[in-house]
Amino acid sequence: MKIKIDREALVQSVQDVMKAVSPRTTIPILTGIKIAATSQGVTLTGSDSDISIESFIPTEEEDKVLVEVVETGSIVLQARFFSEIVKKLPENTIEIEVQPNFLTVIRSGKAEFSLNGLDAEEYPRLPQIEEENVFKIPTDLLKTIIRQTVFAVSTSETRPILTGVNWRIENGELICTATDSHRLALRKAKIETENQQSYNVVIPGKSLNELSKILDDSNDPVDIVITANQILFKTKHLLFFSRLLDGNYPETTRLIPTDSKTDIIVNAKEFLQAIDRASLLAREGRNNVVKLTTLNDGIIEISSISPEIGKVTEEIQSESIEGEELKISFSAKYMMDALKALDGTDIQISFTGAMRPFLLRPLHSDSMLQLILPVRTY
Amino acid sequence: MKIKIDREALVQSVQDVMKAVSPRTTIPILTGIKIAATSQGVTLTGSDSDISIESFIPTEEEDKVLVEVVETGSIVLQARFFSEIVKKLPENTIEIEVQPNFLTVIRSGKAEFSLNGLDAEEYPRLPQIEEENVFKIPTDLLKTIIRQTVFAVSTSETRPILTGVNWRIENGELICTATDSHRLALRKAKIETENQQSYNVVIPGKSLNELSKILDDSNDPVDIVITANQILFKTKHLLFFSRLLDGNYPETTRLIPTDSKTDIIVNAKEFLQAIDRASLLAREGRNNVVKLTTLNDGIIEISSISPEIGKVTEEIQSESIEGEELKISFSAKYMMDALKALDGTDIQISFTGAMRPFLLRPLHSDSMLQLILPVRTY
Repeated sequence: MKIKIDREALVQSVQDVMKAVSPRTTIPILTGIKIAATSQGVTLTGSDSDISIESFIPTEEEDKVLVEVVETGSIVLQARFFSEIVKKLPENTIEIEVQPNFLTVIRSGKAEFSLNGLDAEEYPRLPQIEEENVFKIPTDLLKTIIRQTVFAVSTSETRPILTGVNWRIENGELICTATDSHRLALRKAKIETENQQSYNVVIPGKSLNELSKILDDSNDPVDIVITANQILFKTKHLLFFSRLLDGNYPETTRLIPTDSKTDIIVNAKEFLQAIDRASLLAREGRNNVVKLTTLNDGIIEISSISPEIGKVTEEIQSESIEGEELKISFSAKYMMDALKALDGTDIQISFTGAMRPFLLRPLHSDSMLQLILPVRTY
Repeated sequence: MKIKIDREALVQSVQDVMKAVSPRTTIPILTGIKIAATSQGVTLTGSDSDISIESFIPTEEEDKVLVEVVETGSIVLQARFFSEIVKKLPENTIEIEVQPNFLTVIRSGKAEFSLNGLDAEEYPRLPQIEEENVFKIPTDLLKTIIRQTVFAVSTSETRPILTGVNWRIENGELICTATDSHRLALRKAKIETENQQSYNVVIPGKSLNELSKILDDSNDPVDIVITANQILFKTKHLLFFSRLLDGNYPETTRLIPTDSKTDIIVNAKEFLQAIDRASLLAREGRNNVVKLTTLNDGIIEISSISPEIGKVTEEIQSESIEGEELKISFSAKYMMDALKALDGTDIQISFTGAMRPFLLRPLHSDSMLQLILPVRTY
């Protein structure tokens, strides 16, 4: 293999595929990045066997030459060194040449690196995915959906299935659910699809977090293909593969209360700031718990006590309070996570008593729902 | 004590004095910030007993009311909570009122915090320093002097005196020296002083680093007062006290070679980038060592080998090489630290052989000198 490649394009590609490379892998070759040059361009691959990312640099793009392939071929280079080296090379063009015994020479200006490479034949093959049954989501919407759900996955391996986000696709609608059994986030979105196939899969939360980092903020569509044990996200020059979690996701519909006894309408941003202040002292305690009390004239009191440090109370003017009076305690962190996901609009909070889960929803949309279990206090 | 205070001014002051507060202090009251209100304004104090910082907020500044002192007095509040609270309060004005038993109420908008305070009488007194024998350095120059020397202090407590920077003042000149016995940084500057008093003190490196963080980038003069065991830096609204290190700083003049066998003139920035690249592989090894070899026609070769990973060589065109041929190895980290301190200008490097310390100097100034001991390689 011998190529001359644009430094900026290479740095960006390396940065993308590095997201999948883990220094703590048990498969030594996966600490490397695979570089493969064909007459069409150069493909970089990084993988930790759960996530695999492939980035393609075409020979030309928008009339700019990005790669000159002098000789096709492939090599695996240590990801950590290779990524540091390409970032710091002096000139705009980098030459990479593989010599006998996988010794790889990287030249730029008067700097010359010789790295001990590995045989690309030893690098695991990526899953072959048939590109039928593709559905499409705009990039920015996909990032929003991920942000609004993935925070609620479980971080404990006690029930591994809860470390993922459940994606159900039915009748042209995507329904994403995440829960750690103390709170639940649900987001719906219409999707573009050419067939009526239904899916019900669980994607690791970690995969969605990494995917979100390498997606841009355009509204270009992302192609999504689901197979029995893999999901593939495909943008113009990137392929992002993630394994799916094994097992059945719990049925969550029956957890969501359908009636309510107290309904509050409040501005999410003001409410978030008050909870944030109240939690300043609560964080010190074991639970980070704050208390909400409905008062007269649509006033909500948020309070918290930390006996050794002090206490805090704040009154918020709500848009409206309907139904029974209420005193309820909950985790400030869960409430803040949910309010952030709701993006600062006016929201409705529906309670069915101090011991029952309560719901947060945007006021004029049923695309999203956040559920939180209260904390029992004495 | 009861005051109404501008939030922004308070946030800035708290942030400054927090630099001196350590959560790991053995004196419980020092985890707090002392707040004292007089008819002139409010003084905040933070201290870890090595460093003490006092910030003054006057009642008025540039026709803007910053503090309204309703009742004078003082209190100590937990630094961590107090600083988080003032940052997150909703309105531009904050009311702080001390009630019986040091209970302190902080109000802003509809948010009200009650914090358990401590008796300000228990807070240690700051050293009383006679403000005679003041000398002055512009703020920006003081920050530059600190940056160009403090990195070379020792991080080991084996010889505590070397964890500080030696400041000698003689005949209107300040000479700052730092060494960890493997390298040495020396910086001279003219200072403004009203007397001919000489000083020879050692200031803890940590104090200088913290001082540097709270100084702005103006060229307003900083007043400096030195006593037997304290140094005081004084700006418009800040007092920064540091204890001095006990003991005699070693005589370093005789370490600095006066002759040379090989002299190189090179651009510090290009040289720094080449060393940085060569050290990418060297970092993996035990020593982070790179090798410099003089070639013909003013060319310098920088190289490094890390047997398992690979090797790197780079040629740099120097301005000139005079004297004997040379092969020398040194710590890439020490070289990069020194080159960064030299601020990217053309520099002269003077060698007296592969086993002897060598010197780096700006080409047209004798205000600074960096010395590095080479590494023996076989």
